[in-house]
Amino acid sequence: MKYEIERKFLVKGDYKSKSSAFHRIMQGYLSTDSPLVVRVRISDEKAYLTIKSTVNGSEFSRYEWEYEIPLKEAEDMLKFCGKSVIEKTRYVVKVGKSTFEVDEFHGENEGLTIAEIELESENQSFEKPEWLGEEVTNDIRYYNAYLSKYPYCKWKK
Amino acid sequence: MKYEIERKFLVKGDYKSKSSAFHRIMQGYLSTDSPLVVRVRISDEKAYLTIKSTVNGSEFSRYEWEYEIPLKEAEDMLKFCGKSVIEKTRYVVKVGKSTFEVDEFHGENEGLTIAEIELESENQSFEKPEWLGEEVTNDIRYYNAYLSKYPYCKWKK
Repeated sequence: MKYEIERKFLVKGDYKSKSSAFHRIMQGYLSTDSPLVVRVRISDEKAYLTIKSTVNGSEFSRYEWEYEIPLKEAEDMLKFCGKSVIEKTRYVVKVGKSTFEVDEFHGENEGLTIAEIELESENQSFEKPEWLGEEVTNDIRYYNAYLSKYPYCKWKK
Repeated sequence: MKYEIERKFLVKGDYKSKSSAFHRIMQGYLSTDSPLVVRVRISDEKAYLTIKSTVNGSEFSRYEWEYEIPLKEAEDMLKFCGKSVIEKTRYVVKVGKSTFEVDEFHGENEGLTIAEIELESENQSFEKPEWLGEEVTNDIRYYNAYLSKYPYCKWKK
């Protein structure tokens, strides 16, 4: 079991020219609510089944278990998720000693870009690049599990 | 992906004296509804994460994917399932060329015993032992996912 500490931000400038890699991600949710969120993800040619706690009493942290599974099996599971499958491109952007993962969403979430940083502890400080916008860590609308049910294109602007 | 074809029966006589093995099982559900059921099971000292389709247009069959996971991780996941964890003893009973698995439930499902047989095809015939009772394959109340939410002790007798 991993203990994931993550903070999420909107994006307000050019991160892409600073990225060192990118991955194509497709993911669907087999469970989006209590007690645990269950996600199937294909990232490039690898596939994973991931289980995360929805809450654990902390603002930034979640329990997480992840297992690599055969690509074909993940593809079959995603067929059951239908229209709720999320597609995004994940850009890896190094900023000082930290690494941001910036997700550019496609399909029904087109127009949305979210930067995430994983931390070692909740009060760890990190350098904030100029392209980093408003923090949305505690806004559940920006959770991928939420976006799979209520995509960005349907939000009231 | 496995294609599971299974039939379920109540039990009306002595199967236990004919059993060749038994396993202690604890299992909880991370998702009990669409699109897929996600189950964590500990059977003796081994643990599995299993994903099953809820429906696929057939009476007896479901898609199934199963992954072995570390025992400690399954124990941690089951803590999130709280009171909905199912406990049962599974007896293995050979009858002719077939194998029945007979689940004797404990805890909130005490008093319930269900025999299952897995088939190669939907119209495969098999020997019915004298202890086999009414077929309940299509009665969703006897699905473990249902029992985890509506245990047998709360059914109106």
